[in-house]
Amino acid sequence: MKKIPVSVLGATGTVGQRFVQLLDGHPWFEVVTLTGSDRSVGMTYAEACHWVLTTPMPEWARTMTIVETDPKTVQTPIAFSALPTQSAWEAEALLAQNGVLVCSNASAYRMQPDVPILLPEVNADHIALLNTQRKQRSWSGGILTNSNCTCTGMTIALKALNDAFGVEYVFAVSMQAISGAGYPGVASLDIYDNILPFIAGEDEKVEQEPLKILGSLREGQIEFAPLTISAHTNRVPVTEGHTVCLSVKLRTRTTVETAKQVLRAYQPPQECEALPSTPRPVIRVLEEVDRPQPRLDRDFGNGMVTTVGKVRADPIFDLKLTVLSHNTIRGAAGGSLYNAELAVKLGYV
Amino acid sequence: MKKIPVSVLGATGTVGQRFVQLLDGHPWFEVVTLTGSDRSVGMTYAEACHWVLTTPMPEWARTMTIVETDPKTVQTPIAFSALPTQSAWEAEALLAQNGVLVCSNASAYRMQPDVPILLPEVNADHIALLNTQRKQRSWSGGILTNSNCTCTGMTIALKALNDAFGVEYVFAVSMQAISGAGYPGVASLDIYDNILPFIAGEDEKVEQEPLKILGSLREGQIEFAPLTISAHTNRVPVTEGHTVCLSVKLRTRTTVETAKQVLRAYQPPQECEALPSTPRPVIRVLEEVDRPQPRLDRDFGNGMVTTVGKVRADPIFDLKLTVLSHNTIRGAAGGSLYNAELAVKLGYV
Amino acid sequence: MKKIPVSVLGATGTVGQRFVQLLDGHPWFEVVTLTGSDRSVGMTYAEACHWVLTTPMPEWARTMTIVETDPKTVQTPIAFSALPTQSAWEAEALLAQNGVLVCSNASAYRMQPDVPILLPEVNADHIALLNTQRKQRSWSGGILTNSNCTCTGMTIALKALNDAFGVEYVFAVSMQAISGAGYPGVASLDIYDNILPFIAGEDEKVEQEPLKILGSLREGQIEFAPLTISAHTNRVPVTEGHTVCLSVKLRTRTTVETAKQVLRAYQPPQECEALPSTPRPVIRVLEEVDRPQPRLDRDFGNGMVTTVGKVRADPIFDLKLTVLSHNTIRGAAGGSLYNAELAVKLGYV
Amino acid sequence: MKKIPVSVLGATGTVGQRFVQLLDGHPWFEVVTLTGSDRSVGMTYAEACHWVLTTPMPEWARTMTIVETDPKTVQTPIAFSALPTQSAWEAEALLAQNGVLVCSNASAYRMQPDVPILLPEVNADHIALLNTQRKQRSWSGGILTNSNCTCTGMTIALKALNDAFGVEYVFAVSMQAISGAGYPGVASLDIYDNILPFIAGEDEKVEQEPLKILGSLREGQIEFAPLTISAHTNRVPVTEGHTVCLSVKLRTRTTVETAKQVLRAYQPPQECEALPSTPRPVIRVLEEVDRPQPRLDRDFGNGMVTTVGKVRADPIFDLKLTVLSHNTIRGAAGGSLYNAELAVKLGYV
Repeated sequence: MKKIPVSVLGATGTVGQRFVQLLDGHPWFEVVTLTGSDRSVGMTYAEACHWVLTTPMPEWARTMTIVETDPKTVQTPIAFSALPTQSAWEAEALLAQNGVLVCSNASAYRMQPDVPILLPEVNADHIALLNTQRKQRSWSGGILTNSNCTCTGMTIALKALNDAFGVEYVFAVSMQAISGAGYPGVASLDIYDNILPFIAGEDEKVEQEPLKILGSLREGQIEFAPLTISAHTNRVPVTEGHTVCLSVKLRTRTTVETAKQVLRAYQPPQECEALPSTPRPVIRVLEEVDRPQPRLDRDFGNGMVTTVGKVRADPIFDLKLTVLSHNTIRGAAGGSLYNAELAVKLGYV
Repeated sequence: MKKIPVSVLGATGTVGQRFVQLLDGHPWFEVVTLTGSDRSVGMTYAEACHWVLTTPMPEWARTMTIVETDPKTVQTPIAFSALPTQSAWEAEALLAQNGVLVCSNASAYRMQPDVPILLPEVNADHIALLNTQRKQRSWSGGILTNSNCTCTGMTIALKALNDAFGVEYVFAVSMQAISGAGYPGVASLDIYDNILPFIAGEDEKVEQEPLKILGSLREGQIEFAPLTISAHTNRVPVTEGHTVCLSVKLRTRTTVETAKQVLRAYQPPQECEALPSTPRPVIRVLEEVDRPQPRLDRDFGNGMVTTVGKVRADPIFDLKLTVLSHNTIRGAAGGSLYNAELAVKLGYV
Repeated sequence: MKKIPVSVLGATGTVGQRFVQLLDGHPWFEVVTLTGSDRSVGMTYAEACHWVLTTPMPEWARTMTIVETDPKTVQTPIAFSALPTQSAWEAEALLAQNGVLVCSNASAYRMQPDVPILLPEVNADHIALLNTQRKQRSWSGGILTNSNCTCTGMTIALKALNDAFGVEYVFAVSMQAISGAGYPGVASLDIYDNILPFIAGEDEKVEQEPLKILGSLREGQIEFAPLTISAHTNRVPVTEGHTVCLSVKLRTRTTVETAKQVLRAYQPPQECEALPSTPRPVIRVLEEVDRPQPRLDRDFGNGMVTTVGKVRADPIFDLKLTVLSHNTIRGAAGGSLYNAELAVKLGYV
Repeated sequence: MKKIPVSVLGATGTVGQRFVQLLDGHPWFEVVTLTGSDRSVGMTYAEACHWVLTTPMPEWARTMTIVETDPKTVQTPIAFSALPTQSAWEAEALLAQNGVLVCSNASAYRMQPDVPILLPEVNADHIALLNTQRKQRSWSGGILTNSNCTCTGMTIALKALNDAFGVEYVFAVSMQAISGAGYPGVASLDIYDNILPFIAGEDEKVEQEPLKILGSLREGQIEFAPLTISAHTNRVPVTEGHTVCLSVKLRTRTTVETAKQVLRAYQPPQECEALPSTPRPVIRVLEEVDRPQPRLDRDFGNGMVTTVGKVRADPIFDLKLTVLSHNTIRGAAGGSLYNAELAVKLGYV
């Protein structure tokens, strides 16, 4: 099978690097275009990029020349976007109009009514919004977004609980890794021996995005799920892996044991099953009292699996649990790849 | 004024060291006895103690000889206890019986009906339980405990809110410093680049102790406050300072601005005012969106002040806020000192 | 080819865990025996072991029962030893006597005249000391040690320089990872935001072991290499990867460029070439001015490659360089595996 | 005594903040002017400054308005400069010409022949170069620099050894704190779980500056000390405190005990004795085998004392020792204050 040529937009940042790393040896996709900011255009990737990942920069990437993010230079059927929000607004639409399917990690289009926030295990059917985009916006390509990195793991866990019991209220307190802030991102003097109890816009994303993802697609529109989330988001001195403590009020009461079974048994929609990035299992449920831990659990299943632990009774709501998800893999670049795989499988590319 | 001779029980551990540090130059108290485990007895404090604080060991302490924790060796009117729970059960009662007022940081006696968990700013009146102890147990001394280090700051903040509006439900998620686990305590391989979502017995303490502290003393008995707390406690890579994210349901609705005024205006009971350790203010309320932070705020007011920030509306309950408190000062040794000062002021010593 | 059954001695500690991890899927070896201390004997590995590695414990290991370290229970042709020094003295000799080839990470036997400290890339020929052991000690098995984890990388780099130019003097200052101290090892309160300028016995090992490894085997005896090393060893807050700054006085002067070529071109002895663990290249030389870095470079080549950077002129001696080596892989468990592979290849098993 | 009005140039950066902190309550000086970059001019200090120190911003500073760094706005007899090198070149000279004594932490003028790098304990007499400056440059003020933060502690220790035995060669390997890079400075992703073996220009400064500081002032010129230093400088994950491992070749051999006595007995020149910032002792020599440690020792003597430990024999040169110095106090703002105090005492202001 001939591989599908793809582009990485904003390839030099931390999420761009993750795209390059995860696309190295991908069975379906082959990177042919890397874009960057004006400062980088014309340089090789090795020159332009301050690589921060712990595996070496792939050899094929080192010598590629950075080009502008533009329909003239980006002519692949799929583009993975790690653009900053501001650039994403214009560039992603322009490419979508010109026939490119943009699988974006940027937050720009997430809350647009005709753009899905796609987590294939959760809402694979929302991909049909691409048809709405193509019709309403006269785009020949389209935009698929993945969710905010903190929302990813918790929404997957909430999906399983919501299907089984209905979720009504959620308290969510995050302890987020520094890699989520990009590079240079968080100054070491700000986070060393410290916690930052603020990440701009993050409380709001955690309170909103899961409602859309868990919503129902009816007649080309997403009806948001009827649940309320209260979020406290924090940055902690951890390199990778976002941890979220959840207290959940269910519509139907259940036992801790049944809840764990439901989480463990959660199956992705059938169309996800043969995709290269599908996590197996979707949700790993640990029984050890001191897990999940970011350093020990974030890389499980190539960083695509959501790990849940400490499922126990809550004295106010129904359940307490702790969710861990790899923020720059499952919550960012890996999530976008997974979305692109789903789009290919379902014939949108 | 002649200083009151005091003992430090379990003086070589991290809390014991804090007692020694904070008692260095204390205006009312003078350390004359340091006790330690069998391993340490007979050694000088400098020999027996692996000092981990960032100010040098006081010179007077270096040459003191460690003695057993025993009524024969501990004959001061006041003893500060940093004993492990197991030893505390027996030793503290024995000393109390022999006329010593034990101001204890151990959890052993905290939930006994006739022993107060004392935070002078909150429940100075509970000290009257010493009379109950003396009567019921035929003790000539007594035991005063301070609360668990995670409970301390949050209970002080909740007190102000409870007085003004009534508190009904609280979600509390802690991010606790490694110093809270003592020495050697947390292995570096366990906490570096990591979070531990479990601290033995801690969820339970955070859910129970504030109810007692906020309770009412009626006829020699404490009636627990009628509120429910749900806790998730976590260890994070921070040296000192416990951070707690709270979502609070009030009985009377209010505005964020009014809540902040109430927190800022909170005054301790009059009997606390002239004590050397009284924090001023009791609660510091910050407006900066990214505060409190452990590294920047834990040492404020010699580590005795509770810092509150990020007071904002909660989409499910009424208020979100973040509380920071120095765990080994306000939440441990400093808290016990403050209790002892109150006891002296009120004539219990 | 049928796999060779092997044992891991002291399997529950950090180095023992690395053995289990690296032997998972090894093409030549299959673990059939795991030993542990009295506390662990009779428990399953999953019960006995506090796993601290970032890949999950292999499934086959979870259910294996821990046995004693004893000739009755350890009857494999090869045993990998992660025993503490004290236990190693007796147990390793007993097993060697009973026909087991012990590939040991313990320091116990390293400086014995008839036991090689083996780094196959450097001194594969020293393995012939097994013949001496067998003759002199009437052992049917034998003991092969690998070097101290700090010595490993620097000795490999020094070997290349010594072959080409002769090395006369070396200043070595190490910055060592916390994993080198085992588990629980370094207390977090001791290393967080800190450096420990002392590791027991480490200066001495760094000053002595390389002389033996770089020595010449003549008539069954190792003549130590005629060079002098001065070492300052330090523990720093890094999880894995030992960094060593070297200043080197050569016997024959050279240029920085020639020295880099010599390092890059260094080839292992021919007998190492087809071994599964042979690093390729033996020495990776980086030109970037800010490399090597532990987080970015320690895992290169599955943690078996030595990375050298910052090769530059020294104003007192000839060369400055910085060496990085993965301490629990190349410097511990991976090194012992490599030694065992060499022994198998050369017919000693 | 009326306090001398002073300015802080570049007051919003990390060193500027240290000046503001250390000048809070200084017995001789009172801050009347704070300068900043164009971005900050016109804002209050509280608005313009991202405060990163662990004591709160002094109240008097919060409301001061930031002004330009210019002779029209800076009219105090003394100005403390935390300017970046580029700005320092022009601004410091202009102020010196206009009668201001600039006590600078910038490296710009350090190697100018008529500008001293002043460490009062070491080379108080070099302050006489102010006369040369005033004569040759027609300045009515002048420039005093303090040394690079890594050089400070090691030069003080070398001074004591050089006076007693003569120092010929020095190997110096530094492990430097992140605060030395300013704010935002080192990205957390670059230093977390990592070491950076490169700090731009730092090896060169460590090899050059001590030679000038230890040099002799003869006829208005400094003759550099005849010793050679080889430096490897590294950044490590420590917030404050630079640690340097030294191996020293002396001209006259001595014993470890004598060397320790010489270090302990080192006395500053008489003119330093009554200054507020004079460290007591100048050099603290520790006997504990695992000291100095940055977290435990950096704050000793208000961060002005140099701590030396691990003095032992070196197998190649004569002595090994480890030096610790607080980089943003003794090695930066505190050092400049000390220089200003000396200048006042000797009548240069």
